[in-house]
Amino acid sequence: MQACLDEAWKYQCLTYPNPAVGAAVLKEGRLLSIAAHQQAGGPHAEVLALKEAYYRLTKDSDILPITQALHLHNYLQTHAHNLFHDATLYVTLEPCFHYGKTPPCSLLIKSLGLREVVIGTLDPNAQATGGAAYLRHNGIKVRVGVLERQCQELIEPFVKWSNGSFVLFKYAQTFNGVVKGGIISSQASREYVHALRDRIDLLVIGGNTVRIDRPILDARLVGGRAPNVLIYSKKKKFSDNIPLFGIGGRRVYIEDSLERVAQYSFVMIEGGEGMLRATKMMVDWYLQFVAPKCRALENYRCDKKIEFLHTRKIDRDLMIWSQNG
Amino acid sequence: MQACLDEAWKYQCLTYPNPAVGAAVLKEGRLLSIAAHQQAGGPHAEVLALKEAYYRLTKDSDILPITQALHLHNYLQTHAHNLFHDATLYVTLEPCFHYGKTPPCSLLIKSLGLREVVIGTLDPNAQATGGAAYLRHNGIKVRVGVLERQCQELIEPFVKWSNGSFVLFKYAQTFNGVVKGGIISSQASREYVHALRDRIDLLVIGGNTVRIDRPILDARLVGGRAPNVLIYSKKKKFSDNIPLFGIGGRRVYIEDSLERVAQYSFVMIEGGEGMLRATKMMVDWYLQFVAPKCRALENYRCDKKIEFLHTRKIDRDLMIWSQNG
Repeated sequence: MQACLDEAWKYQCLTYPNPAVGAAVLKEGRLLSIAAHQQAGGPHAEVLALKEAYYRLTKDSDILPITQALHLHNYLQTHAHNLFHDATLYVTLEPCFHYGKTPPCSLLIKSLGLREVVIGTLDPNAQATGGAAYLRHNGIKVRVGVLERQCQELIEPFVKWSNGSFVLFKYAQTFNGVVKGGIISSQASREYVHALRDRIDLLVIGGNTVRIDRPILDARLVGGRAPNVLIYSKKKKFSDNIPLFGIGGRRVYIEDSLERVAQYSFVMIEGGEGMLRATKMMVDWYLQFVAPKCRALENYRCDKKIEFLHTRKIDRDLMIWSQNG
Repeated sequence: MQACLDEAWKYQCLTYPNPAVGAAVLKEGRLLSIAAHQQAGGPHAEVLALKEAYYRLTKDSDILPITQALHLHNYLQTHAHNLFHDATLYVTLEPCFHYGKTPPCSLLIKSLGLREVVIGTLDPNAQATGGAAYLRHNGIKVRVGVLERQCQELIEPFVKWSNGSFVLFKYAQTFNGVVKGGIISSQASREYVHALRDRIDLLVIGGNTVRIDRPILDARLVGGRAPNVLIYSKKKKFSDNIPLFGIGGRRVYIEDSLERVAQYSFVMIEGGEGMLRATKMMVDWYLQFVAPKCRALENYRCDKKIEFLHTRKIDRDLMIWSQNG
């Protein structure tokens, strides 16, 4: 289940408006596959894990190019008879039981006749719950509540944006806490941020950052759509040639209040110390990128590179071991 | 092997002058035990993993109170015949092959007749290597080089302090990079630092920190010995009633040079931005504790609590998800 959780975290918030979910298939104690739901409209974690497990067991490469959920459901139901009768599915969230963008996973699991399904936590969404009861009713052994707290934490954004608003604060800094002096994060980190921008309903940014950094605030690194922007600023005047104003199909609000945030389901705030202070009572989660460099507090030019070696929680702190580069 | 690595990292640098090592025992694909070497003079990781595996298989609780390496070797050799013939030992570092403070692990493994030994990396210490060849020569299947880079990283401090000097910079900050304003880290983090102070040969600290914080710099939280201290300071005058000067059996140097550092095998520097800058060319590794709180840059009194949820590497950055408290 921990491996399912880790896999699901790789797509945290990218699954909006769906929850992040991870799943694994085991047969005779052997791990056949681990997969995560990656994006709304794409196959659920269970289906991707069953696809990978099916391929591992059969080497039937015809399944590999199939990416649509409905086609995967059909292919597995047609080809995977008797393959999973002694298999166990682990999944962080109760398999869905309603027809949404994809057919219900519970029906697929039942029709493949898995022996056991181990579920991290039940689905808090009244529309989607019922999968566990349905599977049990159909003779599949069902266990619920494995690493339950962690599985609930994983879907907290989903619970929040389903019932109102989820606010994520994105923050980038160097190893020694410096947030200024040009691009801080690596390409992969910036791609993750662009993928988030592609998903969110509103991007919030401070007026000073807009004036100083003159950002574009689009999702070009992942070919995504540019989000609507709220510039939080007392002063309403901005130079028209700041790139973010030149993006078509986007709305830009310039306001000295953050009230608008509550009207959106998924909001990302990007900023530094000033925005951290201004928004700390309204933020649900922080997403922090720490770059492997020591940057001088005054002279930003000479970054000293480091390499992160190992991170773990110690009590409530993070313990980070790194190597001087 | 990853689980062995994670276990070993829990005792990183606490094993001085020994390397950090993790080991696991598997039987028929089932994980029986994971253990790490914890402290010089104590049993090696392999012996602790075999002890735990022996207990799991036999429920013979007589082995549980045995903590001395020699007694564990003898007990296992006497009682564990035929128990491990189909077992595999995973270990991050080649099992030792010399009589040091404990009997050689290679002899124990051979006499217990394990089927296979999987080794992360060979021992770079000429005095200790030879274990893999010895085991192979005695008919045990030996595989070397699993997660080798990570297993080598794990023992980099050992390689450095064995061949000269290893310098660790300890750094504590809040989530948003603030290092000032009183105690930052949790009890468990501070206990880890005190355990390190108990092991190191020299503690280096800046003169300003001594004047402002008036520290004790001992290892009272773990009942350990207070290390010798080098105060790095241009000004040589300090108030005698600063607690660190009142600890018996310790030497305190006050110098405006860091040359003395090279004379010691294991040195820990504790400090903030100033010391980071002054020592960045001589530091081998950083150990950073990040506390789950946002602290205002000017008014230190109002910490905003957060909770760390998930951390992973993304490219060379760290990606940290946390929850607003």
